[in-house]
Amino acid sequence: MNFINIIRKKSKKNKLSKQEIDYIIKNVVMGKIPDYLITAWLMTFYINGCNLDEAYFLTLAMWKYSKKIDLTKLKIKQPIIDKHSTGGVGDKVTLILLPIIASLGISVAKLSGKGLGFTGGTIDKLQSIGCQTEWSQKQMVALLKKNNIFVASQTNDIVPADKILYNLRDLTGTVDNYGLIASSILAKKFAILGTHVYLDVKYGSGAFCQTYQQAKQLVRYLKYIGKKMQRKLTIIISSMQQPLGKAIGNLIEVKEAIDFLSGNTNSYSDIKELIYQFAIKILVETEKISYSDAKEKINFAIKSKKALHKFYLWIKDQKGIDLSKKNLPFNPKYKLLVKSNKSGYLNLKSTAQIGNICRDLGGGRIKKEDKIDFQAGIHLMKKNGDYVKVGEVIAVLYSSKKINDDIKKEFLDNIVIKI
Amino acid sequence: MNFINIIRKKSKKNKLSKQEIDYIIKNVVMGKIPDYLITAWLMTFYINGCNLDEAYFLTLAMWKYSKKIDLTKLKIKQPIIDKHSTGGVGDKVTLILLPIIASLGISVAKLSGKGLGFTGGTIDKLQSIGCQTEWSQKQMVALLKKNNIFVASQTNDIVPADKILYNLRDLTGTVDNYGLIASSILAKKFAILGTHVYLDVKYGSGAFCQTYQQAKQLVRYLKYIGKKMQRKLTIIISSMQQPLGKAIGNLIEVKEAIDFLSGNTNSYSDIKELIYQFAIKILVETEKISYSDAKEKINFAIKSKKALHKFYLWIKDQKGIDLSKKNLPFNPKYKLLVKSNKSGYLNLKSTAQIGNICRDLGGGRIKKEDKIDFQAGIHLMKKNGDYVKVGEVIAVLYSSKKINDDIKKEFLDNIVIKI
Repeated sequence: MNFINIIRKKSKKNKLSKQEIDYIIKNVVMGKIPDYLITAWLMTFYINGCNLDEAYFLTLAMWKYSKKIDLTKLKIKQPIIDKHSTGGVGDKVTLILLPIIASLGISVAKLSGKGLGFTGGTIDKLQSIGCQTEWSQKQMVALLKKNNIFVASQTNDIVPADKILYNLRDLTGTVDNYGLIASSILAKKFAILGTHVYLDVKYGSGAFCQTYQQAKQLVRYLKYIGKKMQRKLTIIISSMQQPLGKAIGNLIEVKEAIDFLSGNTNSYSDIKELIYQFAIKILVETEKISYSDAKEKINFAIKSKKALHKFYLWIKDQKGIDLSKKNLPFNPKYKLLVKSNKSGYLNLKSTAQIGNICRDLGGGRIKKEDKIDFQAGIHLMKKNGDYVKVGEVIAVLYSSKKINDDIKKEFLDNIVIKI
Repeated sequence: MNFINIIRKKSKKNKLSKQEIDYIIKNVVMGKIPDYLITAWLMTFYINGCNLDEAYFLTLAMWKYSKKIDLTKLKIKQPIIDKHSTGGVGDKVTLILLPIIASLGISVAKLSGKGLGFTGGTIDKLQSIGCQTEWSQKQMVALLKKNNIFVASQTNDIVPADKILYNLRDLTGTVDNYGLIASSILAKKFAILGTHVYLDVKYGSGAFCQTYQQAKQLVRYLKYIGKKMQRKLTIIISSMQQPLGKAIGNLIEVKEAIDFLSGNTNSYSDIKELIYQFAIKILVETEKISYSDAKEKINFAIKSKKALHKFYLWIKDQKGIDLSKKNLPFNPKYKLLVKSNKSGYLNLKSTAQIGNICRDLGGGRIKKEDKIDFQAGIHLMKKNGDYVKVGEVIAVLYSSKKINDDIKKEFLDNIVIKI
């Protein structure tokens, strides 16, 4: 077997075998294949397609040549659930859902990546409130046993193949491929063996999948791989046609999560819908209770502030700020009001563009090395379908650096107001 | 304009513009694009196709960012012809055709590459008889004025883009693409501006194009580019279903060329046919004479030994051995007879494999840096369709190093003998 023959085979539209994909990934991880060969090979998959079996073989091989942590063998209370989103704008579901579930006695173990491009990342949000996100396996287990929840950064030994491939895909424009996306997500999810994995596949102008149909295609890949690898996988498809909730950024999203957990759930109907959808599914599946019992349990967790206190405890135990005693340090130096120049019903053109504006304010990164301004962010005063009058504030922009007036124009260019 | 957007455009099956291809080639030549991006881009062309216009834009850009030598402005007798073969096994046409044409008073100027893989190269054959092949522009002109013939190695400043792209194509398996092959050949041919270019496009088991139909496809590209670049291009399609002539190697091919030029033309019917086809075309087109007059002129050049003496003079003036005084130094230390184990009519399976065996004897190279054993080679005693008896010698193998008996089996495995 050699790499050029495998590249040639795929470039001629032939399917690659389990052995061939294993050979590639093994050698990629060992650093034996130069980048110019890897990118040529990735392009063959990108153009000629990575079918369901190839995506499964890829997941299997990336998972095989990775460190693995089997939480089911470490005397941790089961079920142990993990939740992952394919990435969006204003997506603070993890910050809210996980403490709710954990407060109900279910173990929650999650490894997460940093945000990149227009999407935010949970790790960044945790770091904005002082959390340590790098934890050893022993420490993760200790966090789980004490508090039945942790969210940690992926370490370099978790699916090293994915780090190499994702970076090269990003550099050569081959990110948006179902098989490559699905294997990248699942190899990492399956490296940490809990009992259940819950996936939130986003579609819309603020997601990889632009349409619901595309999201369904990705789900087909995810389900196929999950089945082949005999893992419990539950998937919800949800809209990213506009940011989730009203806050986009880091500290500002934590603030919104705390507001939600404090009981102010009706101000965020889209978040509420998604949180309940996930939480009910989790409870029904893992606790074998009815839909209405599950809903009641969640209502109670929020109303009783159990979920909020679980959140405070989680953050404190991950060495973050003790928010039960101290205020959230959200105090941006600069703010800018974006006001409407028309009256009518508002609609965003592109959710990704809102993510880009947040990034430009300092709240996100283009390259992995970029530093984030945790104070930067956007507060949407109006969402899709809301009526707005001339001069009314549509959004408030925040940053630690002076905000250029041009960004206001960028924001207004991204909305349509129709009567 | 940026490289990733261009890659993405082509990966989505869109055609690239003249400006986009110019941008790529300019930056490739300036060393501004990392290899992993170039190989990904080459793969988009390889899979999604490089159409006629893209191949023309590629040729134009590679030619543009190259040193150019305009022989038509250097007081050299016109016409000035160039001849190129797409590469084959036992192809010594250049060594025979060029001195015939030059002996008839036509200027012949050719830059040539080294042999690689199963194909031999004219430069290697010239070096086997001591020729200097690196010449400055001034020296090339002096050779032309004195003797109206030269064959020189391509220098690094002639189409540097092709050197970079060809090397990466070779490493990533994207060599066999019509547009990429056509542009690679013609950018180099057009960098040296004579008056006529003659191309020998090979097809068969010893050529890039496996079938006549594939050769016709390549010719379509070559003609389109030639027309767009307003150059006189004459193309002959010829078979490489078996090696040309009986000798494969370096010194052994020079020996055969001398034998042919000495008048023993009827022993090599396939060489003779091709030489006359080319030489007649050249004379008819450049001298405006009839087919029969052209044929008579060629007969005379060979019978009178004018072509042979032109060959001797050419080699001597390129600082090679004076073959009018000294014998050809073909005296290989080892030889091995390959005898038939059957009686019947012989047929080769693969011409490329004969080239590979010659390479393994030491007569060729895998990598550009490999050294060649000029003594190594193969003499075919039988060709396709010849009758052979059990125990009769089919071929003689030569080398400076001991010849492993396994190679005999390899040779026999590559032939079929049927009654």
